[in-house]
Amino acid sequence: MEEKVIPYKIYLEENEMPKYWYNVKADMKKKPAPLLDPKTLKPITEDELSKVFCRELVKQELNETDRFIPIPQEILDFYKMYRPSPLVRAYCLEKKLGTPAKIYYKFEGNNTSGSHKLNSSIAQAYYAKQQGLKGVTTETGAGQWGTALSMACSYFGLDCKVYMVRSSYELKPFRREVMRTYGASVTPSPSMETKIGRQINEEYPGTTGSLGCAISEAVECASEREGYRYVLGSVLNQVLLHQTVIGLETKTALDKYGIKPDVIIGCAGGGSNLGGLISPFVGEQLRGENKYQFIAVEPESCPSLSRGKYVYDYCDTGRVCPLSKMYTLGSGFMPAATHAGGLRYHGMSATLSELYDQGIMEARTVKQTEVFAAAEEFARVEGILPAPESAHAIKVAIDEARKCIETGEEKTIVFGLTGTGYFDMMSYEKFHDGVMTDYIPTDAEIEKSLEKTPKWADPQSK
Amino acid sequence: MEEKVIPYKIYLEENEMPKYWYNVKADMKKKPAPLLDPKTLKPITEDELSKVFCRELVKQELNETDRFIPIPQEILDFYKMYRPSPLVRAYCLEKKLGTPAKIYYKFEGNNTSGSHKLNSSIAQAYYAKQQGLKGVTTETGAGQWGTALSMACSYFGLDCKVYMVRSSYELKPFRREVMRTYGASVTPSPSMETKIGRQINEEYPGTTGSLGCAISEAVECASEREGYRYVLGSVLNQVLLHQTVIGLETKTALDKYGIKPDVIIGCAGGGSNLGGLISPFVGEQLRGENKYQFIAVEPESCPSLSRGKYVYDYCDTGRVCPLSKMYTLGSGFMPAATHAGGLRYHGMSATLSELYDQGIMEARTVKQTEVFAAAEEFARVEGILPAPESAHAIKVAIDEARKCIETGEEKTIVFGLTGTGYFDMMSYEKFHDGVMTDYIPTDAEIEKSLEKTPKWADPQSK
Repeated sequence: MEEKVIPYKIYLEENEMPKYWYNVKADMKKKPAPLLDPKTLKPITEDELSKVFCRELVKQELNETDRFIPIPQEILDFYKMYRPSPLVRAYCLEKKLGTPAKIYYKFEGNNTSGSHKLNSSIAQAYYAKQQGLKGVTTETGAGQWGTALSMACSYFGLDCKVYMVRSSYELKPFRREVMRTYGASVTPSPSMETKIGRQINEEYPGTTGSLGCAISEAVECASEREGYRYVLGSVLNQVLLHQTVIGLETKTALDKYGIKPDVIIGCAGGGSNLGGLISPFVGEQLRGENKYQFIAVEPESCPSLSRGKYVYDYCDTGRVCPLSKMYTLGSGFMPAATHAGGLRYHGMSATLSELYDQGIMEARTVKQTEVFAAAEEFARVEGILPAPESAHAIKVAIDEARKCIETGEEKTIVFGLTGTGYFDMMSYEKFHDGVMTDYIPTDAEIEKSLEKTPKWADPQSK
Repeated sequence: MEEKVIPYKIYLEENEMPKYWYNVKADMKKKPAPLLDPKTLKPITEDELSKVFCRELVKQELNETDRFIPIPQEILDFYKMYRPSPLVRAYCLEKKLGTPAKIYYKFEGNNTSGSHKLNSSIAQAYYAKQQGLKGVTTETGAGQWGTALSMACSYFGLDCKVYMVRSSYELKPFRREVMRTYGASVTPSPSMETKIGRQINEEYPGTTGSLGCAISEAVECASEREGYRYVLGSVLNQVLLHQTVIGLETKTALDKYGIKPDVIIGCAGGGSNLGGLISPFVGEQLRGENKYQFIAVEPESCPSLSRGKYVYDYCDTGRVCPLSKMYTLGSGFMPAATHAGGLRYHGMSATLSELYDQGIMEARTVKQTEVFAAAEEFARVEGILPAPESAHAIKVAIDEARKCIETGEEKTIVFGLTGTGYFDMMSYEKFHDGVMTDYIPTDAEIEKSLEKTPKWADPQSK
């Protein structure tokens, strides 16, 4: 194919945008292990899951056969408001590095939620509305997911109840106010509104909360209220499915210019962005049509894939959710209070875990100080101020591009730039002031945490 | 022309983007009054101005004859990183309002500086670099302009020295950190680094500073340092010129779909965004090719056009800059501490002042509480969280669209959405908590402030 001039930013036309999400499980010969009911240790049924999640989302969660799931028109309409996201050729970064590599990034930060989270929140809100629900509940740490959900609920006229970890609620009031702007009710967790909240407040007076506790409160709240369901922003198959809009757009944009990536890189917390970005490419590879190098980038402080175990574990620290087989550091693992809040998750998407286990995807860990250095280097030439989470992918993309200087290879590197860092400036300040530290958990810490995983629950245990 | 389907967002192709800025003064029969030297009261010369500003920028400042000024390739390259900005059809807002009006907004917030300011900062940094300067100095209040300038200087490897009003420096640390990320040196003003700073610190111990003082420090610093010049983010003709990229893109996008706007609306502080947006359309009107309604929206707390006088006045409270004939509330006018920091300027661009005086443009004032209500209404349906400044234009666009419901007119309304409100969440919080107030200056206050304007300086005085 004749090589076309590659613009700085490739925007798809409206008629080129994906009309279907891609379900990578349909192309996996060995499927991810099923979710288990923590009481019976049997695969959880659609009916059981539907008590917590919206019915249509449960169908998507369990669907292993349909390769393509149509995106409802109402969601496509909303996507038009902030999609397509640009696929940017990092000409300035390439020049700065002096690399023969060609670097592209898919930038998901150009919406008010500031990240890719909106891709799934709008889908989850839509199905909740369609089911005739009144509202949804969720938890949020730093607030990225809560913001995305409140925007989606505002659009569909749904009530949105967010349990926000009290320390974030008090120390990071900005995202809280964005959520309020979109009409969400934001409650600091632990609250006195739920049984579990009151119990924790009584046990630990003055506690500033944790994500595990906020999840438990949100789940309890949803189950107690008529017409409410709980929604989650990562880890689940349904979330990965919605996020494939990232990868599908990326693939269409690359195909349009006849570009074949060699390396595809994404940061990995629960896996929603990485899974969404790589799924369509993984599918090609699984079908034997193409071959790529996939790299999941994790913080060294929370290395689920790199140093975790592939076993059944609880998805939440409160242990109210189903068991999922995944790479995990143990549901009691307490990652250091690093600045990439979105990557501080003890486990990993079951689908990505399985792909990693099959050797289709590799994983790397990076230190947060080097992540911020990469973020700053990137910002100064490419203009965009990245979220600390996203900067994990930048760091490894730069590493790969620097390798090409040595080898002379003209590799094409694609990475996911999931969001912006406007609400993370206190972290940047620590970096500028030279007071940011790195934290690497010891083997003993991880082993101790893993001891508590319910290994007995794994029917497919090796 | 056959009506095409209008996409949610119109993005121009790279080859459709403007290659020239448009100099509206060339089409004005009666030109804006010249800048005067405050000492001699004579029109200031190119050489005199070049002591403060870059030479090429001075040429642009004084140019009244060239209709088009070519945009240098290096600036075009930088523009590609974040331009074209989308022209968005506000389908969701129209539906929400139930208006027959068609609403479009040109969204300039999709870059890290969060506003249109980058359009001019990159041009000013380029000419500084081209002149062989080492660096530039400027002042910043809330930090929008300082951020834009630090990004531009980082790109061209220029030193960037920002005097930031001390109260903002301490209370709004986030923008300060963005500037530091881009390598700028940010000094709280008044500082002990300049004569004027030391003097003010001595006179008013513990003062938290003012924009006027920061300007004086920045100008002093530039004049004392070898290879430095002072740069400014609004008010000047050169800034309006660079900002015409907004209006030119808007016009190309509208023309592409055969759309003719009836009303064009922008918020007005110093006039950079509004002037940039409307100039190409004003030019058509001046040449008798078309007719539009132009509306400048001002905060009721700082109504330069609506309640000011058209006389020569100082551009800065420190009275170190040239005299400009403009609509002004008096250079000593202290606007209430409202939440649209970018609109708290006592004067107005000389060009816009002249257009207003000729009756080509009208002005409206709005209360900040109703501005925030409009911002929230907009955010909930259109997704974007607007800056308080930008929301002034939203408020009037909604007003105009609501009028169309009554009259049944299908007017096409275009407004400038200059930026995002991510760093303004404390203001939104005040609005949510119901503790935001409105402030309207009394006639006596304005008259008292205007008494001090140097009316004697106006050679063209009516």
